[in-house]
Amino acid sequence: MKTLIQNGTIVTATDRYEADIFIDGGVVTTIGKNLKVAADKTLDAKGKYVLPGGIDVHTHLDMPFGGAFSVDDFQTGTIAAAFGGTTCIVDFAIQERGHSLRHAWETWMAKAEGKAAIDYGFHMIMRESTPELREEMGAMVKEGVTSFKLFMAYPGVFYLDDASIFRTMQRSGEIGATICMHAENGPVIDVLIEQARAKGHKAPKWHALTRPARLEAEATYRAICLAEVADVPVYIVHLSAAEALEQVTAARDRGLPAFAETCPQYLFLSYDNYEEPGFDGAKYVMSPPLRDKAKQKDLWRGLKFNDLQTVATDHCPFCMKDEKQIGKDDFSKIPNGAPGIETRMSLMYDGGVLAGNITLERFVEVTSTSPAKIFGLFPKKGTIAVGSDADIVLFDPAGSTTWSAKTHHMNVDYNPYEGRVCKGAVDTVLSRGEVIIEKKLFVGRAGRGEYVKRKAR
Amino acid sequence: MKTLIQNGTIVTATDRYEADIFIDGGVVTTIGKNLKVAADKTLDAKGKYVLPGGIDVHTHLDMPFGGAFSVDDFQTGTIAAAFGGTTCIVDFAIQERGHSLRHAWETWMAKAEGKAAIDYGFHMIMRESTPELREEMGAMVKEGVTSFKLFMAYPGVFYLDDASIFRTMQRSGEIGATICMHAENGPVIDVLIEQARAKGHKAPKWHALTRPARLEAEATYRAICLAEVADVPVYIVHLSAAEALEQVTAARDRGLPAFAETCPQYLFLSYDNYEEPGFDGAKYVMSPPLRDKAKQKDLWRGLKFNDLQTVATDHCPFCMKDEKQIGKDDFSKIPNGAPGIETRMSLMYDGGVLAGNITLERFVEVTSTSPAKIFGLFPKKGTIAVGSDADIVLFDPAGSTTWSAKTHHMNVDYNPYEGRVCKGAVDTVLSRGEVIIEKKLFVGRAGRGEYVKRKAR
Amino acid sequence: MKTLIQNGTIVTATDRYEADIFIDGGVVTTIGKNLKVAADKTLDAKGKYVLPGGIDVHTHLDMPFGGAFSVDDFQTGTIAAAFGGTTCIVDFAIQERGHSLRHAWETWMAKAEGKAAIDYGFHMIMRESTPELREEMGAMVKEGVTSFKLFMAYPGVFYLDDASIFRTMQRSGEIGATICMHAENGPVIDVLIEQARAKGHKAPKWHALTRPARLEAEATYRAICLAEVADVPVYIVHLSAAEALEQVTAARDRGLPAFAETCPQYLFLSYDNYEEPGFDGAKYVMSPPLRDKAKQKDLWRGLKFNDLQTVATDHCPFCMKDEKQIGKDDFSKIPNGAPGIETRMSLMYDGGVLAGNITLERFVEVTSTSPAKIFGLFPKKGTIAVGSDADIVLFDPAGSTTWSAKTHHMNVDYNPYEGRVCKGAVDTVLSRGEVIIEKKLFVGRAGRGEYVKRKAR
Amino acid sequence: MKTLIQNGTIVTATDRYEADIFIDGGVVTTIGKNLKVAADKTLDAKGKYVLPGGIDVHTHLDMPFGGAFSVDDFQTGTIAAAFGGTTCIVDFAIQERGHSLRHAWETWMAKAEGKAAIDYGFHMIMRESTPELREEMGAMVKEGVTSFKLFMAYPGVFYLDDASIFRTMQRSGEIGATICMHAENGPVIDVLIEQARAKGHKAPKWHALTRPARLEAEATYRAICLAEVADVPVYIVHLSAAEALEQVTAARDRGLPAFAETCPQYLFLSYDNYEEPGFDGAKYVMSPPLRDKAKQKDLWRGLKFNDLQTVATDHCPFCMKDEKQIGKDDFSKIPNGAPGIETRMSLMYDGGVLAGNITLERFVEVTSTSPAKIFGLFPKKGTIAVGSDADIVLFDPAGSTTWSAKTHHMNVDYNPYEGRVCKGAVDTVLSRGEVIIEKKLFVGRAGRGEYVKRKAR
Repeated sequence: MKTLIQNGTIVTATDRYEADIFIDGGVVTTIGKNLKVAADKTLDAKGKYVLPGGIDVHTHLDMPFGGAFSVDDFQTGTIAAAFGGTTCIVDFAIQERGHSLRHAWETWMAKAEGKAAIDYGFHMIMRESTPELREEMGAMVKEGVTSFKLFMAYPGVFYLDDASIFRTMQRSGEIGATICMHAENGPVIDVLIEQARAKGHKAPKWHALTRPARLEAEATYRAICLAEVADVPVYIVHLSAAEALEQVTAARDRGLPAFAETCPQYLFLSYDNYEEPGFDGAKYVMSPPLRDKAKQKDLWRGLKFNDLQTVATDHCPFCMKDEKQIGKDDFSKIPNGAPGIETRMSLMYDGGVLAGNITLERFVEVTSTSPAKIFGLFPKKGTIAVGSDADIVLFDPAGSTTWSAKTHHMNVDYNPYEGRVCKGAVDTVLSRGEVIIEKKLFVGRAGRGEYVKRKAR
Repeated sequence: MKTLIQNGTIVTATDRYEADIFIDGGVVTTIGKNLKVAADKTLDAKGKYVLPGGIDVHTHLDMPFGGAFSVDDFQTGTIAAAFGGTTCIVDFAIQERGHSLRHAWETWMAKAEGKAAIDYGFHMIMRESTPELREEMGAMVKEGVTSFKLFMAYPGVFYLDDASIFRTMQRSGEIGATICMHAENGPVIDVLIEQARAKGHKAPKWHALTRPARLEAEATYRAICLAEVADVPVYIVHLSAAEALEQVTAARDRGLPAFAETCPQYLFLSYDNYEEPGFDGAKYVMSPPLRDKAKQKDLWRGLKFNDLQTVATDHCPFCMKDEKQIGKDDFSKIPNGAPGIETRMSLMYDGGVLAGNITLERFVEVTSTSPAKIFGLFPKKGTIAVGSDADIVLFDPAGSTTWSAKTHHMNVDYNPYEGRVCKGAVDTVLSRGEVIIEKKLFVGRAGRGEYVKRKAR
Repeated sequence: MKTLIQNGTIVTATDRYEADIFIDGGVVTTIGKNLKVAADKTLDAKGKYVLPGGIDVHTHLDMPFGGAFSVDDFQTGTIAAAFGGTTCIVDFAIQERGHSLRHAWETWMAKAEGKAAIDYGFHMIMRESTPELREEMGAMVKEGVTSFKLFMAYPGVFYLDDASIFRTMQRSGEIGATICMHAENGPVIDVLIEQARAKGHKAPKWHALTRPARLEAEATYRAICLAEVADVPVYIVHLSAAEALEQVTAARDRGLPAFAETCPQYLFLSYDNYEEPGFDGAKYVMSPPLRDKAKQKDLWRGLKFNDLQTVATDHCPFCMKDEKQIGKDDFSKIPNGAPGIETRMSLMYDGGVLAGNITLERFVEVTSTSPAKIFGLFPKKGTIAVGSDADIVLFDPAGSTTWSAKTHHMNVDYNPYEGRVCKGAVDTVLSRGEVIIEKKLFVGRAGRGEYVKRKAR
Repeated sequence: MKTLIQNGTIVTATDRYEADIFIDGGVVTTIGKNLKVAADKTLDAKGKYVLPGGIDVHTHLDMPFGGAFSVDDFQTGTIAAAFGGTTCIVDFAIQERGHSLRHAWETWMAKAEGKAAIDYGFHMIMRESTPELREEMGAMVKEGVTSFKLFMAYPGVFYLDDASIFRTMQRSGEIGATICMHAENGPVIDVLIEQARAKGHKAPKWHALTRPARLEAEATYRAICLAEVADVPVYIVHLSAAEALEQVTAARDRGLPAFAETCPQYLFLSYDNYEEPGFDGAKYVMSPPLRDKAKQKDLWRGLKFNDLQTVATDHCPFCMKDEKQIGKDDFSKIPNGAPGIETRMSLMYDGGVLAGNITLERFVEVTSTSPAKIFGLFPKKGTIAVGSDADIVLFDPAGSTTWSAKTHHMNVDYNPYEGRVCKGAVDTVLSRGEVIIEKKLFVGRAGRGEYVKRKAR
């Protein structure tokens, strides 16, 4: 299968230029002016941006949650991702207490098998850190699982104590793996939750009020310090608080390999959403919670100046009519999570690039190139260059997208950005050279996505 | 008993002037020029500084340690303190697992009873934080125990987890008590110790190498953040690392009630001492450990600019020929602690005031006034003013003091400052108007010291 | 003349206690409980605070301004000061181009002679920095003029270039004098003023809009850097911007002898006042201008944590009906200055102490003790201690003061705090033991104030 | 002319991949695997890095200096640049007092005409800032001179006062030009120089001792503040001091468009070089001077984390046997400047990439891509992409280069890195597709270089 993309404006993290792209065997083989080649399929990209496909390194598809599951599986989730211009995800396999890492990895491989419409990799969440599990981390790296996520939050569920975190960090350093950290002080948050409940507070906004920004900053600094002593890089997932960003910025100002990801919800939504009428605040219950609107500008500054390196989604959808109802009378029982896998690229283009917060090249970098580099997917993914996978999005700056639960492709009954009109539209999406989105239709197929073995550092 | 001190130069945290002091009933009743009063005893302070007696808010006398005890009890320790110009201490009562706070307080009251030569108060170390104990904190405040010390270090011994610390902080806020914090990340330090031992490291210096400064900084920031959320002041004990001081400074720069104490050993000794020949490094095994010499100037800056508010000793002596030998073949078993109750004022005058690091008034402030104010002893203690206790030191700037284990009054077989000559000498010491040190002799008596009920905030 | 003050609560920067004060020969000679002494006059201070008289180190009395003068001379100004609880001022003698420093000093000595009702000293403003004038600085120090004020603002009037400032700083270092700095980038401000006028902007608020906070921060950092290289302390006068305070705080965090003064107007008034109807904004035209209300809290933090050491007034009154009218049609012509000499202590007590921003002891420190220490008046002034001048205020916390141009004693036709009710009232004021304010009346006399020779560092 | 580069490893600021490059008409037209094209010339790049040609945005060729000139003209200088792997420079045209900008531009165009071997552009140094000159800046932008350099140093020579700087900044903002700033406080430095000379100091090291780092930090902050108020980006040239970098970092941490360049001499040489025997220190006399070795790591951190964006040379050579002798007996008369145009890429590869300070991609970014983007040369220069000029370096990582005045191509009699062996070697250099360096020989010709009209922002 040979494909030719003509006349587009190719954009990478560094470059922007007009050229044709020739794809053969799923890989970009030639980029040039007026390529004269025989192609099975020719796409006219005149007037369009030709972008590296988005990479979302933080998703939770088909994630078990108290007997149920997050409502997008690898089929609905990856198709929605493709509609949104994302061509690769890194999801989280979850080690179960008493079980091996391999068991977790195989379980998640099975979840994706036959369903994924785009390529995918896995981080590994470790609920425990025994000597055996730490030893097994090396085997996982060989399988392409080169990042391990630990939690400073959720005692009794995901929480690891500092000693366990530190030992896991040290092991990670030995094997060239990266530590992803959920940085909130869970034990103290649990005290605040208990006290709020004891006072009879039930509304969704209490989710935010019991998770103060300072406790995210605290855990962020702690994670950075432990990583410094263990001498390994650390990647803070879903950074939401300007106070936490200050710690990342300070760490980088003193030369440490500290990285952080934020998510569109922290850039475009805010605490005010929790004050929406009735139970609507539950739509936004996620951890960390949405923060003060006035601090969004700090996150944009961080993104612009590379104190934040990536934008992912933490996509973990639950329906308002079903799962979210569990917390109807108790904010602490509302399933944590919200949808976002489909809206990320659109929001970042409209609210990031067009709003003047970041350049188009930086948009490519934070949504694709940087995540690929940090997580061992580069240069297979994350760029448009000779030899790289032809994961490519034709993006129409003249188009527009109106977000709504009625029309989105995520399997969830609400959209946090309901009614928002974003300039720009995903026109065509290629995954390894194969067109999977064309004329607003999914023309790929479930199961065509491949597992990507990621490289260690 | 009426006493008159004539012709001295009275120094307080603010003032310096020449006047006579008249003491009646243990209290300063008149300060004036050429007082014409009938006195039972008249002291000529011509050419001497007349200072508020030193207050050492961090001592561990008669402290149980693995079957033995720290080698100064309330008799030897307080007499040594008096020789050094200190007229009041705040020692630590230690709650035992499963026992009440009152039990601890009564135990320590009994230790001091009949022995103490100067006045004393108690902080309360809490090894646990149950609802019952937190409730009982209120009763302790009524008894004059208005500060509670918690540990982020020493898992299995003193360590409290973050949730327990936070709950105790909240309770402390309710009752106007102050939290004292030992800020080092104990669980991670224990991993480092275990790893160093597994590698066969035995020498005393490994005590320092397994307690990196960054882990003190981490715990310091964590303590400050938890206190900020709990909305209470926090007092960091024995701050040793410049990196930790940065966190205190930053906290104060953003307006938080964060306080910190340092000790002479961190100002005058350094990591280099651990490299002394043979087992001599064990003399300096204390926690936090001594740090890099190059960073001492940062502590002095902090003292000068009030980012550090107090200088205490953490006096906790063990003999080199006895207790310290426990760790002969294992640095991690060396009893943590060193003597200092007698040397503090002398070192701070010689190495602080005369060296140009702090003014004489600031010397009074950090060794007496500030500790008194922070811990509810003021104005009974900590100043020379009408109505205050006549805890007074006549200090001779023309004298000099040579420190040696052969001549010091502490019940320990080494002096960390052996051979150091300090300009200035304690000449006469009064405790509540009674002369207890005169002409290099102790003329008071064991047991004359009184328990001081400290005030809550 | 012997005076006895009985039963008051004496407050200093450190202490607070109940005692009697005996004054003989203008000086405090005895402080004690129930003093039995023969006095010519006895004051009952029961229920009152007995405070060191306020010291205002930034006033401009009888200051020439374009043919006219600031409207308070040394008589009206010092009487108003006394009513407000201030017993000592340091005014500014102004060197004229081509004239000596001595000429300026003698001119200002003559202005005060026979008029001043309280004691006074002089800083020296240097409009030029020639080798001769720098040489002469030494002679001025001998006369008690131990501080020299330089301007980074007002080109053509007071402005000195960086080289001149630096040379003057070096000289100041040699002779133990202190540099006071007006820190705003005048040349750039003049460009902004010219541009605003060219656009037809006339209203008083343009005074503020052409003096952005960033240009105060810039000059503040520059002053600190030059002083660091010259190796001398620097004192920033009338610091108004939080951005400038950040620079002072950072300087102190790295250990430099940088000091700063703020004024009540920056703590209690804000840019909003410039938006008052008609020409009323002119009341607040001073330099630096009033800043954003939201930043006042930063100044309070600075005061509390000693990054700001003093509160002075920059008292420089002009009448709205007369002098201020000069700028009716041109904001840049409005005389810079506002009244404040009488209101300072009252505002700082009500809005500082009672509002919980600072303690009563810190109030004494920033309004009296610190200015006295920084400017060589201590311990003659700035405290209540044996041997110090009996400059004392009996302050009634049960009283209250309503500020109004109708009733104030300053010779100006408006009060920036018109109608503001402050709790607390100055009851009685003594200057060197002599009662000068009693029962709301001035009972001293013009001319009784004495020149104070200030000490060098 | 068609050229094919085969089998190389192409490296850009983002990408690294193996491919062939086809060049037609001086421009890259195709990049691909195994290109089958007819070429006039084929280069085998097997085992070599194929890099964007270096861009040196800070050179002073043929610069008049007190009757003489810097000793490289546009012929010797650009040939040396080419040997070093640099294919484009931006030199400085210097406006003369009383003359127009156009006059300066035309003078420098004439200097380059017929001589330059590589492409070149010009910044414009403004010695004055009159309304006429500021007006004329717009015409210069139309000619492709889109950056203006101002000096805070060198009073009487290049120095502009703050008001002039500010007005020029404002004009620059209007026309989309960039301000380059030499940030040192010249007036104060001149005082220090005068004082050092008066004390009889003559040795070259006094050049450094009279230009303290703090005065660079001061001017850097001032430049940033003025630019912030003028609302324009600012680019600090040749940043040398860690203290100045702190100000740039802080500015970026608060979101300002502040940029800075450093030079290899500040990364690889240090104050110690001034202590070399005899007059050898004169080799390193440049402004700002070399700084403490211990602070080099701070600059590397800044480069790595993008607080420093570019590395240029400030190439301005003078011979030790001739021009430098002027200052034999007076450090202040030593011509400021040193050679570097040829050594930059080599040093940055060896001491930057191989030493682990920066990645190879970041090396490309700081030496080529970033300068091109900041100064309006991109994407014509600064990358290897379809449509961009074929300014390309084949760099041999297996080669090595020994630097010596005996063998270098710069027209100067010493090399600051004499004897240093750098791994890696420039193998082949193409300028707009034409091979100009091949087998260690210059095969281009003087005068082939073209003027590049740079774009405004």
